[in-house]
Amino acid sequence: MTRTPGKTLGVGLIGYAFMGAAHSQAWRTAPHFFDLPLRPELTVLAGRNQAAVTDAAARLGWQSTETDWRRVLERDDVDLVDVCTPGDTHAEIAIAALEAGKHVLCEKPLANSVAEAEAMADAAAKAATRGVRSMVGFTYRRVPAIGLARQLVADGRLGEIRHVRAQYLQDWIADPAAPMSWRLEKDKAGSGALGDIGAHIVDLTQYITGQALAGVSAMLETFVKERPLPTETGKLGGVGGAETGTVTVDDAAVFLGRFAGGAIGVFEATRFALGRKNAIRIEINGSAGSLAFDFEDMNVLHFFDGSEPAGTAGFRRIVVTEPEHPYVAAWWPAGHGLGYEHGFTHQVVDLVTAIAENTDPAPSFADGLQVQRVLDAVERSAADRSTWTEIPAPRDEGPRPPRHSHARDGALDEAAGTTERKDVS
Amino acid sequence: MTRTPGKTLGVGLIGYAFMGAAHSQAWRTAPHFFDLPLRPELTVLAGRNQAAVTDAAARLGWQSTETDWRRVLERDDVDLVDVCTPGDTHAEIAIAALEAGKHVLCEKPLANSVAEAEAMADAAAKAATRGVRSMVGFTYRRVPAIGLARQLVADGRLGEIRHVRAQYLQDWIADPAAPMSWRLEKDKAGSGALGDIGAHIVDLTQYITGQALAGVSAMLETFVKERPLPTETGKLGGVGGAETGTVTVDDAAVFLGRFAGGAIGVFEATRFALGRKNAIRIEINGSAGSLAFDFEDMNVLHFFDGSEPAGTAGFRRIVVTEPEHPYVAAWWPAGHGLGYEHGFTHQVVDLVTAIAENTDPAPSFADGLQVQRVLDAVERSAADRSTWTEIPAPRDEGPRPPRHSHARDGALDEAAGTTERKDVS
Amino acid sequence: MTRTPGKTLGVGLIGYAFMGAAHSQAWRTAPHFFDLPLRPELTVLAGRNQAAVTDAAARLGWQSTETDWRRVLERDDVDLVDVCTPGDTHAEIAIAALEAGKHVLCEKPLANSVAEAEAMADAAAKAATRGVRSMVGFTYRRVPAIGLARQLVADGRLGEIRHVRAQYLQDWIADPAAPMSWRLEKDKAGSGALGDIGAHIVDLTQYITGQALAGVSAMLETFVKERPLPTETGKLGGVGGAETGTVTVDDAAVFLGRFAGGAIGVFEATRFALGRKNAIRIEINGSAGSLAFDFEDMNVLHFFDGSEPAGTAGFRRIVVTEPEHPYVAAWWPAGHGLGYEHGFTHQVVDLVTAIAENTDPAPSFADGLQVQRVLDAVERSAADRSTWTEIPAPRDEGPRPPRHSHARDGALDEAAGTTERKDVS
Amino acid sequence: MTRTPGKTLGVGLIGYAFMGAAHSQAWRTAPHFFDLPLRPELTVLAGRNQAAVTDAAARLGWQSTETDWRRVLERDDVDLVDVCTPGDTHAEIAIAALEAGKHVLCEKPLANSVAEAEAMADAAAKAATRGVRSMVGFTYRRVPAIGLARQLVADGRLGEIRHVRAQYLQDWIADPAAPMSWRLEKDKAGSGALGDIGAHIVDLTQYITGQALAGVSAMLETFVKERPLPTETGKLGGVGGAETGTVTVDDAAVFLGRFAGGAIGVFEATRFALGRKNAIRIEINGSAGSLAFDFEDMNVLHFFDGSEPAGTAGFRRIVVTEPEHPYVAAWWPAGHGLGYEHGFTHQVVDLVTAIAENTDPAPSFADGLQVQRVLDAVERSAADRSTWTEIPAPRDEGPRPPRHSHARDGALDEAAGTTERKDVS
Repeated sequence: MTRTPGKTLGVGLIGYAFMGAAHSQAWRTAPHFFDLPLRPELTVLAGRNQAAVTDAAARLGWQSTETDWRRVLERDDVDLVDVCTPGDTHAEIAIAALEAGKHVLCEKPLANSVAEAEAMADAAAKAATRGVRSMVGFTYRRVPAIGLARQLVADGRLGEIRHVRAQYLQDWIADPAAPMSWRLEKDKAGSGALGDIGAHIVDLTQYITGQALAGVSAMLETFVKERPLPTETGKLGGVGGAETGTVTVDDAAVFLGRFAGGAIGVFEATRFALGRKNAIRIEINGSAGSLAFDFEDMNVLHFFDGSEPAGTAGFRRIVVTEPEHPYVAAWWPAGHGLGYEHGFTHQVVDLVTAIAENTDPAPSFADGLQVQRVLDAVERSAADRSTWTEIPAPRDEGPRPPRHSHARDGALDEAAGTTERKDVS
Repeated sequence: MTRTPGKTLGVGLIGYAFMGAAHSQAWRTAPHFFDLPLRPELTVLAGRNQAAVTDAAARLGWQSTETDWRRVLERDDVDLVDVCTPGDTHAEIAIAALEAGKHVLCEKPLANSVAEAEAMADAAAKAATRGVRSMVGFTYRRVPAIGLARQLVADGRLGEIRHVRAQYLQDWIADPAAPMSWRLEKDKAGSGALGDIGAHIVDLTQYITGQALAGVSAMLETFVKERPLPTETGKLGGVGGAETGTVTVDDAAVFLGRFAGGAIGVFEATRFALGRKNAIRIEINGSAGSLAFDFEDMNVLHFFDGSEPAGTAGFRRIVVTEPEHPYVAAWWPAGHGLGYEHGFTHQVVDLVTAIAENTDPAPSFADGLQVQRVLDAVERSAADRSTWTEIPAPRDEGPRPPRHSHARDGALDEAAGTTERKDVS
Repeated sequence: MTRTPGKTLGVGLIGYAFMGAAHSQAWRTAPHFFDLPLRPELTVLAGRNQAAVTDAAARLGWQSTETDWRRVLERDDVDLVDVCTPGDTHAEIAIAALEAGKHVLCEKPLANSVAEAEAMADAAAKAATRGVRSMVGFTYRRVPAIGLARQLVADGRLGEIRHVRAQYLQDWIADPAAPMSWRLEKDKAGSGALGDIGAHIVDLTQYITGQALAGVSAMLETFVKERPLPTETGKLGGVGGAETGTVTVDDAAVFLGRFAGGAIGVFEATRFALGRKNAIRIEINGSAGSLAFDFEDMNVLHFFDGSEPAGTAGFRRIVVTEPEHPYVAAWWPAGHGLGYEHGFTHQVVDLVTAIAENTDPAPSFADGLQVQRVLDAVERSAADRSTWTEIPAPRDEGPRPPRHSHARDGALDEAAGTTERKDVS
Repeated sequence: MTRTPGKTLGVGLIGYAFMGAAHSQAWRTAPHFFDLPLRPELTVLAGRNQAAVTDAAARLGWQSTETDWRRVLERDDVDLVDVCTPGDTHAEIAIAALEAGKHVLCEKPLANSVAEAEAMADAAAKAATRGVRSMVGFTYRRVPAIGLARQLVADGRLGEIRHVRAQYLQDWIADPAAPMSWRLEKDKAGSGALGDIGAHIVDLTQYITGQALAGVSAMLETFVKERPLPTETGKLGGVGGAETGTVTVDDAAVFLGRFAGGAIGVFEATRFALGRKNAIRIEINGSAGSLAFDFEDMNVLHFFDGSEPAGTAGFRRIVVTEPEHPYVAAWWPAGHGLGYEHGFTHQVVDLVTAIAENTDPAPSFADGLQVQRVLDAVERSAADRSTWTEIPAPRDEGPRPPRHSHARDGALDEAAGTTERKDVS
């Protein structure tokens, strides 16, 4: 980039499965569409198996490899560590990286327990005083339609929020013959649908409404308790054999919630909604307007403006591909929709911008901790006859949940506004 | 009807507001489209105000009037009493009518309390031994798309049911300036959104799945606690004045539930979903298929058949206007959809058929009682920190809720099958 | 009706098949929901077969029968003749009825040829001078969503109309094994998809836009030229035998058109669109806004308001069930949709109102003639290598087609406005 | 790529505006998701202005620059020339490149006239005998949902095709104040909506049906004939000044068509459909099934299977994100949709595969010529009172249009099948 000739950001990526591939595409792509203040370099990819990591590095575009993630933290050419490993290793790696003075991007959920997440948030707070930044990877915030939803709420177009209903529906293990996987083991995955996909709708609804969840009443369910062990290990969709293993996480999580501002929430995360592949559905009803979103039609946001006369009022199907919409100006003309992976590119843009501008990116580790506390409250309520379970207000903040993301919104909007689409004359 | 020359069914209708108008249209219309075994006569309309009831009778097509509902029960030309009054009078009128040997059709919810509903179910059971029939008016069961949903589940096309999500979304009091009404007073209405519209989704999901709810965890909310008293009393949508009254019912009810067969349910009933006028939305995921319905598009049912190859599987948008579909053959050619009031006509058809065939119609008062118990459990859970609250299994029946409606299904399908569309050559 | 004690309107209906049943339901139902200035009486039903017409009269609610339609015209208790026979008899019956001083409601298409339609329009104009009214039955105009579409255009919300695309898609003879029917014979039906369903989209688009078609370029197609003769005659959906008959009408008609105001139209009417049962789809793009309608979701109109800022603009899904919408106030609360047959009831309301008010109802026979001329131009263009074929401007009017329906709009709107929903307290 | 260590494909790109950016992203991205037999190198970017092209090369990732496209053809490190210039230069550049022995990828429409396109097809045929390959860039063929549509037709799931309706709706110049652009000048752009977007729906419907258009009847329209000249030249969306220029191309093109196999087509391409940004809508009705696609929801294909029983038949909403679907296995798990630019990546995959396998890629220049002939027939019909205008059958082939794309289908499917998603364990 001619504007920042010598300034680069060396990135070390730990893990190269599904999320590693998505993050790699984002690091490669962001500078071609956005004017970044720092140029990311795909410096090093880390994985335990040398042959596998070498092959992955070639395929994903990384310049070098390491087989021990600790080596990545020691390298001077690495400015940022991108953590794409399973959740049980997040805390150790992220804390070590922050202590080593590396910025950290950590996949969600932040950790497998509240205790780990607290330690990570502590480390992040300490690091921030030294100018070291951290961010947790709730990328769906960066879908343009979600950004627009956030803006409409922030602009008061919904008025006082009364209802939130959110579903994250998948079906990839609806078949009892689908084999075991580390994602179905509690010690590795922490939880099942709850942490894997429920975490997203907790974050998204808190982000869009600008309110934290203050309490929940919950129910968890494991529909299929024994599954065949895969004959090929480690791969989703492998073929199951004759031996079986025990599923120790939830297949589905449903919960009622109360937001700090008074809104009522109804949440459902499941891997058993046959026919729904990745349906993130969010509806919000306020005193002045309503919103509806479904990731199955991700470039669209439905908005009902309560100020319209009844005769012509109706949910507007906004195709969120206009230059006015968040991030969109950098891409294609109106009507030429984006896909799943673009959110990761936007995440890179916001993170790099925050680092260069010396501001804290959002969602922060503290935001990730707060989500972790919601998940924890869900599990405790479900274990105690669905009894109402309070969630501590986000810490270091007043009685009303403060929303790091509020602070970030300004920066985020600004970033989206200033990183214009390049002149492609 | 030439085929049943002398056989008539004298009907006495108590109440002539919204429901009274809908029932009148059904009694008038049914014999013109269906071959009924008994010819309904609109014998008498009852209301307290002579001038008003006279005017209503002229408008709605009733032959005579009474100002005391007890007089209706004494008349020899009345065979059936149709109860369309507010819920606090259901028990008294219905029980008296049954004891007077009149068949009874009673609007939902059956009563304002479990005790009343129990007394009504007792009376109905006793009356049935004398050949006197009773039915509660959950008319949405008779929307053809709902009937098709029930059939698909009964035929095993969904396999084992795992998830039920149901919403009944309205917005008619979302505006805090909307005035008070008897529907917002607990002593008259029993409850708010819960009993008025929540009752429908409880009945519909139990009907479609063939499973009773066994327990719930719930939360109720009244968003607007004081409202202006209407300057014109008794009318929805009246204009509010300076004085205010206190809303003593819920504006919204949300609850988690567990069905007897193991399925998880998530329910939401609200009058504050801005932009949604009468959105009854039901989705069901089973091990073999899934269903989705929205009353905003009432002639359509979405069905996912899990046995399709993945490459061509998808939710089918079934336009439920084929002669094969429940009730449809009596109406118009394919693609010519029905409206809201047709469910009431179908209700008359099924009721009259059951009376003529000496069978118990469904949903029975016992079914209405069971719904009442669900509503009661919701209220008790909500009052007790959302604690899980069990619902007694439907009485006089084994451990697994037997569902009168199961028995009825056969009859219902038969009825729909035999009452063919008339030859309109 | 107490308000118009002695004033009745005696109706004689000729024909009792599909349209006869729909008209009967309308005549029976209208006075129960609308305050009509004249009370319709179902005086006499006419059909050639005494047994059949007697049975139909009992079923459809008519007081007496005739086996010769001419007798209906002679009866003093008949004020209005409702013509529901096949198109080849429209001209003779309607003209005779008008000459006999009877108001006439005639099903569409007005006639099987331009010459017949001209004679009918002449007769109607003459009759009007004597206070005898006539109307052609394009009932889809009376779907509330279509009425709202018309209003939005008339209010300038679409600006200058540029594009009209209209489809009427059915599939009832897509199967080559579907048997012959009089609807597939040119001498009885006049044309096939063109006149049967194409006529509707010609009328609807002219009505909504307020512009007449000025020319067309067309193509007709008969996909299946020989079909089995039905073993049961006269019924749609009968079973075909071994003998075959020749289809002499079009299976599908497609044409380009130019509206008088400059808009471009693209039209398609077919009985071979597999999976579409009765999909009337109309989209209109103007300089200020756009509209989209699909009869498969008949209670909805989609409206794009071009004056919205790009960031929040989108097609609004208007659920056309508000009291503000045409005809709706007479029916149910918001969100409780209407069905196919309600348009016929609205037709009765508008016709009776016009008769009582001594105004000409719309659409007039002249409107029906104009549609006939469009159909005729389509046939001539299709027969002449799709060459552009002009359509004469509606007669007795200036260079720019004046639209009887314009004049009627006011009355229509007024009617819809004044015939309020009855107080159903 | 470890599998093809030394084999690279040097690419020279001419032009770097909208299409140049899309092509660059494709060349960069393809090798990271697909196992390509040749590794593309972004060797050289050509543009007339040195400063601008240098800046673009840095942004888009090209290794060197040229200011004269002829220089690109002379370079030994260039194996393929990618032509992204305006249409009036396609013929000269592409022919010269083929003669220089370079493979050519040329943006659509192939040329601005039939004569040019013929010369290009001749050159391509000659080059092919020397193993030099050429392809025209109808990328929408490579949207997975379109690929699936093609497969369903090829597999006979639609039976005999009867109806095709296709629309390409945009609105970017619906506002008369939108300024002039080279795209509105006939000598540069060839035509307006017709060639720019109409060409896509001609190609797509021919591709999906496997049938060539044999004749058309057409109408063209220019709604806004004078527009302000832009004060900033050369940019879409620039601001218009006081001076005006004359629009010499069509704003909208509508036409009827007949496919070689007998199907009837209705086509509409416009830049004046207010509210539609990039709506490519295609519906196809056959004797056994139907299809519907809308690019506004590009990851979805609707399919009606006519062999379903009527009671459960309905258009299936297939979310085209399964590994079974064309190209999808290389990307993300089910439900994680793709965006606009992915089609360009798929184009690169298919082109590189064909080059490596020594087969002719599709769509060929001959396919592009055939589309050009359709566009030409549309213009001639529109200029001659919409008279039916025949289109010569594709040359070098029998009476029934031969469809290069047929031949290609096998290869294409094979390519999609073999380029599996990489193991991202």
